[in-house]
Amino acid sequence: MSSTFGTVFRVTTFGESHGKGVGAVVEGCPPGIAISEKDIQPQLDRRRPGQSLLTTDRDESDRVTILSGVENGRALGTPIALSVANRDQKPGDYASMQSIPRPSHADYTYQMKYGIRASSGGGRSSARETIGRVAAGAIAEKFLYEQYGIEFVAWVNAVSMTSASEIDENSVTRSAVDESIVRCPSKSDAAQMEKAIKTAKEAKDSLGGIITCVCRNVPAGLGEPVFDKMEARLAQAMMSIPATKGFEIGSGFSGTRLNGSKHNDPFIKRGDRLGTLTNNSGGVQGGISNGEPIIFRVAFKPPATIGQAQNTVDFDGNQTTLEAKGRHDPCVVPRAVPIVESMAALVISDMALQQKTRQY
Amino acid sequence: MSSTFGTVFRVTTFGESHGKGVGAVVEGCPPGIAISEKDIQPQLDRRRPGQSLLTTDRDESDRVTILSGVENGRALGTPIALSVANRDQKPGDYASMQSIPRPSHADYTYQMKYGIRASSGGGRSSARETIGRVAAGAIAEKFLYEQYGIEFVAWVNAVSMTSASEIDENSVTRSAVDESIVRCPSKSDAAQMEKAIKTAKEAKDSLGGIITCVCRNVPAGLGEPVFDKMEARLAQAMMSIPATKGFEIGSGFSGTRLNGSKHNDPFIKRGDRLGTLTNNSGGVQGGISNGEPIIFRVAFKPPATIGQAQNTVDFDGNQTTLEAKGRHDPCVVPRAVPIVESMAALVISDMALQQKTRQY
Amino acid sequence: MSSTFGTVFRVTTFGESHGKGVGAVVEGCPPGIAISEKDIQPQLDRRRPGQSLLTTDRDESDRVTILSGVENGRALGTPIALSVANRDQKPGDYASMQSIPRPSHADYTYQMKYGIRASSGGGRSSARETIGRVAAGAIAEKFLYEQYGIEFVAWVNAVSMTSASEIDENSVTRSAVDESIVRCPSKSDAAQMEKAIKTAKEAKDSLGGIITCVCRNVPAGLGEPVFDKMEARLAQAMMSIPATKGFEIGSGFSGTRLNGSKHNDPFIKRGDRLGTLTNNSGGVQGGISNGEPIIFRVAFKPPATIGQAQNTVDFDGNQTTLEAKGRHDPCVVPRAVPIVESMAALVISDMALQQKTRQY
Amino acid sequence: MSSTFGTVFRVTTFGESHGKGVGAVVEGCPPGIAISEKDIQPQLDRRRPGQSLLTTDRDESDRVTILSGVENGRALGTPIALSVANRDQKPGDYASMQSIPRPSHADYTYQMKYGIRASSGGGRSSARETIGRVAAGAIAEKFLYEQYGIEFVAWVNAVSMTSASEIDENSVTRSAVDESIVRCPSKSDAAQMEKAIKTAKEAKDSLGGIITCVCRNVPAGLGEPVFDKMEARLAQAMMSIPATKGFEIGSGFSGTRLNGSKHNDPFIKRGDRLGTLTNNSGGVQGGISNGEPIIFRVAFKPPATIGQAQNTVDFDGNQTTLEAKGRHDPCVVPRAVPIVESMAALVISDMALQQKTRQY
Repeated sequence: MSSTFGTVFRVTTFGESHGKGVGAVVEGCPPGIAISEKDIQPQLDRRRPGQSLLTTDRDESDRVTILSGVENGRALGTPIALSVANRDQKPGDYASMQSIPRPSHADYTYQMKYGIRASSGGGRSSARETIGRVAAGAIAEKFLYEQYGIEFVAWVNAVSMTSASEIDENSVTRSAVDESIVRCPSKSDAAQMEKAIKTAKEAKDSLGGIITCVCRNVPAGLGEPVFDKMEARLAQAMMSIPATKGFEIGSGFSGTRLNGSKHNDPFIKRGDRLGTLTNNSGGVQGGISNGEPIIFRVAFKPPATIGQAQNTVDFDGNQTTLEAKGRHDPCVVPRAVPIVESMAALVISDMALQQKTRQY
Repeated sequence: MSSTFGTVFRVTTFGESHGKGVGAVVEGCPPGIAISEKDIQPQLDRRRPGQSLLTTDRDESDRVTILSGVENGRALGTPIALSVANRDQKPGDYASMQSIPRPSHADYTYQMKYGIRASSGGGRSSARETIGRVAAGAIAEKFLYEQYGIEFVAWVNAVSMTSASEIDENSVTRSAVDESIVRCPSKSDAAQMEKAIKTAKEAKDSLGGIITCVCRNVPAGLGEPVFDKMEARLAQAMMSIPATKGFEIGSGFSGTRLNGSKHNDPFIKRGDRLGTLTNNSGGVQGGISNGEPIIFRVAFKPPATIGQAQNTVDFDGNQTTLEAKGRHDPCVVPRAVPIVESMAALVISDMALQQKTRQY
Repeated sequence: MSSTFGTVFRVTTFGESHGKGVGAVVEGCPPGIAISEKDIQPQLDRRRPGQSLLTTDRDESDRVTILSGVENGRALGTPIALSVANRDQKPGDYASMQSIPRPSHADYTYQMKYGIRASSGGGRSSARETIGRVAAGAIAEKFLYEQYGIEFVAWVNAVSMTSASEIDENSVTRSAVDESIVRCPSKSDAAQMEKAIKTAKEAKDSLGGIITCVCRNVPAGLGEPVFDKMEARLAQAMMSIPATKGFEIGSGFSGTRLNGSKHNDPFIKRGDRLGTLTNNSGGVQGGISNGEPIIFRVAFKPPATIGQAQNTVDFDGNQTTLEAKGRHDPCVVPRAVPIVESMAALVISDMALQQKTRQY
Repeated sequence: MSSTFGTVFRVTTFGESHGKGVGAVVEGCPPGIAISEKDIQPQLDRRRPGQSLLTTDRDESDRVTILSGVENGRALGTPIALSVANRDQKPGDYASMQSIPRPSHADYTYQMKYGIRASSGGGRSSARETIGRVAAGAIAEKFLYEQYGIEFVAWVNAVSMTSASEIDENSVTRSAVDESIVRCPSKSDAAQMEKAIKTAKEAKDSLGGIITCVCRNVPAGLGEPVFDKMEARLAQAMMSIPATKGFEIGSGFSGTRLNGSKHNDPFIKRGDRLGTLTNNSGGVQGGISNGEPIIFRVAFKPPATIGQAQNTVDFDGNQTTLEAKGRHDPCVVPRAVPIVESMAALVISDMALQQKTRQY
């Protein structure tokens, strides 16, 4: 199921970095939901490169077209095909990389897997593939907000050595996140992150970081034991985003250091349902949402393509030096914020629909 | 696909903690592979509770029976059904927990999801469900070893505050891992972990920990872009194991703090293929194995069921105190070692078979 | 998805003719449905060989055991594992067939596919595999009757040259069907069919036939465009039953000879919904149920294993003569009646659950 | 999996009759296969309406564009997205049909299923949806011919009362089929079919028919027991084509009247493999291809949309008369020939790839 994600609410993405276009086909969206290009474009714009000096300079307008599945602004319940044209191809930029696989990039592994690969850019491993995910995720978000009031907010929680402090997961908003170009809602930390990225860019180097995402108003009962537990599908979804190296939910790795008596989240009465006093569980127990905010973090490595000279070997094993030409993102984490939100929305919309099948 | 995992090599598990039995159906195992109960039982024995004072005292012999799919010691290519009987049911132990959902356990969420739940124990959320995974994983391991020489070794890398040091991922063996009852191949660290678990047990408390797993001799080219990337499926697999809260591969979360120029793994010539000088990638680039060892870590929270009194509320929201009766594992991490290995084997066998479909 | 059928209500069957057992794992059954072995056994008994002199003489009691997923008579929403032990193995009966592939049987193709095959009987191609389907189908039937009042009645409509006449699809019942051992509710035709089967048995020959099935009270709106249309999934389901060679719905092949003006089913008002005056559509339009009875027919070839001497070649291509030993069914059609009903119930339960995901 | 077909070689179609476009995403095509629009267009042209006076007059050029997955004329192994723009929308033609569901059409059932439907034409139930299948099928055919030499030839075997005679399944070619506009390679029968269609057109009526398809050079061993048997998947594939009412393979329904001793296909030595003297099996035994030609037939009902006045009721149940405006096909069977071939190619390519996973 390589390019398809989901069981009932399902998305199939297509497209390479430098072919005619990229996009997605969304199946399972309930009929009647209000959908138009205007619901999708804002998240694509947030994902788009060239939003600031911090990111790659390519200007790709990335306008989405709905090809099918929607009429008069309403989903028909049939597959929604979404298409975005590719532009701005400069294959020349990638010429030297044809014979030299970029260290820590997908050049070598694609060649080994397929025996052939796209002649320029990252082909299917390019961040451009995520356009289809974000377009599909915007539809999932619309559905979840309309039917359940669910909202997704992700932000940059760390860039390299700088971690954000004091962000209230219960109240942080997307507009607060977008106030800084690094998408960190803690202003002083954002300034420091911005500075670090500029420094790396000047050094033709790159930086990694961490994104935190909160999903609010998710009803209790979503998540499919045993292999499609909420955290399992979120983990798959996040680790399928290019450049990710880690995922944790709730207390995560640091929770392994607590005793059970401290880690357990005591139940409390919260209106007409049960809530928990703490949220080390990250909103999930036994793979199923418990009604508390779902909170997780995703680790992004520094981008592999850098302008600095690197000692490596070519495909034949001959020692050589590689300096990547072209324009490359020194830090993808700010642009990855809408991708994380979109993948979370795809997971939860699928689980919401699956849960409907039990409600007799 | 809640109880089914995999696309070509697929396992469907069944069974609750206290019904008649648990097990799995394995589809897609190539015909002709030598399989018998003897290939499966050792990993089930490593998973079994009651192996030492450190773990729960229940004696479950957990003998596996192959019901179908194998004849004269060879896989027929048809579904292999694996069954393990349940024993030792003491529903009385769980009586008080019927009206009080255990904090950070699945009692509340199962009730919210299904509107009904098993009357005792964790039902489908029980660690007993993992028997089917381990039995199926043993078959996957057999196949991968016979056909590719792939081997899986996992070990306990941390228990609570104690982390293991100096373990060579290229040479560590299962027998070295099993030398200590905590399954940490670093002897001095193992002793300290053991002590910590005993202390927690006496305090009717519980401890979490971290497991590291290495998959050696995985050929380059395995992993399915884009949603079934190697790390994405491993993440799903690991986060579907009960009590897991985090997953990281290669440099993981700490890699986010490195610059790209330091993080990138330069290629080198390694015999007739390319290798990498470092392995921050954890054996995976662009979602596809690169021929280096695949290395990942999994975070386990402290078990939720503890004997200490906990302030919480019952299902109706009334304040109460819960003291879990019965015998409960103070630290599941040592027993989870074969589960991690098994899930890794299930992921990689599925990917190996999928890769065959491209080899014309 | 070879041994798994369905998307939401899914069944995975396992087991060969002569291993330790056969069975199925049912996923997706809504929680709370009342289920016990007593709901399942009657259909297994109808499927069982040895019900009369007309069928094979093997006495297999075929008692089903529910291993998981049910507690106190209610489905938990977790996988329901169903197991039936094998007995009465007489491998000796099949000795001569080891080197000679039976004409029109699966011996040759299994060997070509898998490079190995079960040493006796039909292995996975045996009718015994259908036990898992019937057990699972009984659960699907229970669910559909409880929630929708849907009922399934199939009967033998033809044996060899004899076709049944005058059966009212709107009122025919299972007890009427079971009044004759050939399961044809038209008594005079049944007598003639019975006679034909006896004659064939004496001649060590075999007969084919046709089963008709009606599904009543299926609500309008079930069926998933475009590849999982109601008739498409029914066709797959029926053509997956051993020995089937054809499927038709509504007017079927004979409808190709009518003009559209005659074939179209005019709509009429039927209470608070629309109905149709005729039912050439067979209850399905555009792949979706229209609320009228779903009616289809399935063609079964004469069984391949016969006692008569057949000129054929062995696996090495040497000319030889084959006379099947053992006891073989001269006509499987009466026993296939519950299998057809079960597969129909599996299709429609899956579609009913999928339709739930649109109902916001 | 409503709009997705296949397990390894998989196609997802999208598009309504009158939206911006239709198309498909093809996953699993092995890398390196030579693919260009020129390989796809011929089958789309054969499917296109307006090829002669016998079919609907709409001129749709239906030019396919490959959006992704192919570079320099070679498949990359990544998803191949195929797009065809819609044109020639005349929604006015369908105005009267908005309040009156066409008898035996999908108007009523789509409304009941989705609570909403496309405002004109058949929406997703339109024959236009099959463009994606034909485009995808052309790729499957290319792959199967290159790697296995498999070829698919379908033809019109009956139109209404006229059946074709004397067509040699072993030698009939597509060019012979295309010699007549009704696509029947028996010339005298073709003339009579043509005449019948013209008569029906003048009477504003419609005709059904039967297509036969042969798949030659399919190697033994393809087909996935038990639910994805070759004939089961072919049946699903064919019955998912709009307007189909029946499917039979080999001896089909008429084979039910033969005794086993006559029906069985004796094995013979055929070069270095076994063949069969007769082919009542239709090339499939136990759900697996046996190396003989796979032969099946598909029944198409007369199109539901006719110009004649029909007595029926509107959506509110009020008695009314409907005369369909616009241009409608009096007989879709000739145009359905490439659709049948395409669906067969999709089934067999998927099975060929699945079989690769066993070949160690």
